[in-house]
Amino acid sequence: MLIDGKEYRSVWFEDGKLHLINQQKLPFSFEIFVAKKIEDVAFAIREMIVRGAPAIGAAAAYGIVLAGEEIEEAIEKLRNTRPTGHDLFYALDYMRREMERGRDALNAADRYAEEIIKGCREIGKHGKDLIEDGTKILTHCNAGALATIDYGTALAPIRFAYAEGKNIFVYVDETRPRLQGRLTAWELEQEGIPYALIVDNAAGYFMEREEVDLVIVGADRIARNGDVANKIGTYEKAVVARENNIPFYVAAPISTFDPSTKTGRDIVIEDRDGVEVREGGRLLPEWVKVRNPAFDVTPRKYITGYITEEGLKKL
Amino acid sequence: MLIDGKEYRSVWFEDGKLHLINQQKLPFSFEIFVAKKIEDVAFAIREMIVRGAPAIGAAAAYGIVLAGEEIEEAIEKLRNTRPTGHDLFYALDYMRREMERGRDALNAADRYAEEIIKGCREIGKHGKDLIEDGTKILTHCNAGALATIDYGTALAPIRFAYAEGKNIFVYVDETRPRLQGRLTAWELEQEGIPYALIVDNAAGYFMEREEVDLVIVGADRIARNGDVANKIGTYEKAVVARENNIPFYVAAPISTFDPSTKTGRDIVIEDRDGVEVREGGRLLPEWVKVRNPAFDVTPRKYITGYITEEGLKKL
Repeated sequence: MLIDGKEYRSVWFEDGKLHLINQQKLPFSFEIFVAKKIEDVAFAIREMIVRGAPAIGAAAAYGIVLAGEEIEEAIEKLRNTRPTGHDLFYALDYMRREMERGRDALNAADRYAEEIIKGCREIGKHGKDLIEDGTKILTHCNAGALATIDYGTALAPIRFAYAEGKNIFVYVDETRPRLQGRLTAWELEQEGIPYALIVDNAAGYFMEREEVDLVIVGADRIARNGDVANKIGTYEKAVVARENNIPFYVAAPISTFDPSTKTGRDIVIEDRDGVEVREGGRLLPEWVKVRNPAFDVTPRKYITGYITEEGLKKL
Repeated sequence: MLIDGKEYRSVWFEDGKLHLINQQKLPFSFEIFVAKKIEDVAFAIREMIVRGAPAIGAAAAYGIVLAGEEIEEAIEKLRNTRPTGHDLFYALDYMRREMERGRDALNAADRYAEEIIKGCREIGKHGKDLIEDGTKILTHCNAGALATIDYGTALAPIRFAYAEGKNIFVYVDETRPRLQGRLTAWELEQEGIPYALIVDNAAGYFMEREEVDLVIVGADRIARNGDVANKIGTYEKAVVARENNIPFYVAAPISTFDPSTKTGRDIVIEDRDGVEVREGGRLLPEWVKVRNPAFDVTPRKYITGYITEEGLKKL
């Protein structure tokens, strides 16, 4: 992605250190977080300095490069940072296999990252034709370049359609509690793609008024039956989209499909700390009781199709 | 409502001045806003120091008491504060009629306020039987005592059911952008009613997991055909509730029903300043483009029934 005229990835390895665009600081300031040891990487994943399933996977892969001899211990440390991310476990399993085969860790992690970027590029190419000239798109959370090293999943078709000169508009859910929609707004602003950020409550309003033609979201994990675990709120958008006959697409690399998970009911949903909802006490005093599930599951029946690097899938 | 052991209303007239519980300061601090002249009242309505359709109506009625001789000018000033609130217009029309009949302004405004409180009490009594022992209820925004001088509309049945010793639990949508769910949480906390505040995105999650048995919301205006204009996000909750076979009730006094509005399509939706979404720049930098519709319209087909002071209505 282009930031102030310079090409960036959200995750890269340089001079023996892992570099991450600090997504906690955006959209207010653009800063790079540098991880020198495995604990820094675990911290960055847990604190969502790096976020987005593919970017977390890549950060974990590069984390193993920093682990030195203690591979199993490192894998355990990273595995315990976030419970829902299938990509995280996939990346760690991949790195273990590569190491067991005696491969160079950095080389293996680089190949892992390149594979993600190539996948996103392909998702963009396969998805762009769903977007006609004049299409108004709704997206939830940030399934952009920040989340996937480059291009994005949900944002890749949008980027490619826009690059073709199509006249498009993007409604961006702000995505409480963590407000990742701000990251999507930041990405679109960088590239000059027309958008408006809306509160999550307003998505239905625009859908009902026929101001949304298409919904594209990313995915954290896709079960064997096609149920999709994604950022909290995805389920509501999917239900309201179907009610209004708006196509609802999930853009995700094949690695997000988890054959070991039978249905969405088998996906453990992370109940995160209420401090996110409180925004550090700025939005809510300490005494307010809070529940804060981080993801929800959208049953397959609400999903029009899946945009993958291998093309459109219907399941 | 009981606050720290003392009985309060959210709107009352005392010593020649209008007193309002300052809803902008809650839930962080409990303060009283005192309005001495008509401009103070207009300011309080516009800045949402007083909010909730019935409370705004009562504040406007008491505002006319402060107007002295310039009744028409005062009515005009108050009428221009908020475009969507039918109660505001209703209260001003009522006060004009009373004045034309030579009635005492304070006396008329008092009767107006008493009528609201009585209506809410009746809504509570009619609605409480919808709530069985063990019921988990979802509510959106704040349709509580703060919004209606006392008892509330959506919260009145909840208060009456709880007072009967029923074991209930309330999920409270935080209700971005203005976060009025915090006010609901504050009211429930005062009365010891079990609740959890959730982000708006999580309502669907709890509905889909069968952790919500009943939805009760208030209304800003109800069209002749039964369509309901209410806080942004109400429409989404109604669609997802129906999808999950959860009864969806609108609690509102008869004065909210507007026979002059044919359908929800005829209700003008207020597009409010994006500064609400930015939270004064704390949540979003200035450059982010924002759209901020304040209300949405829930078509009648999603509404199980209307809880009014005259009993349950199906329309």
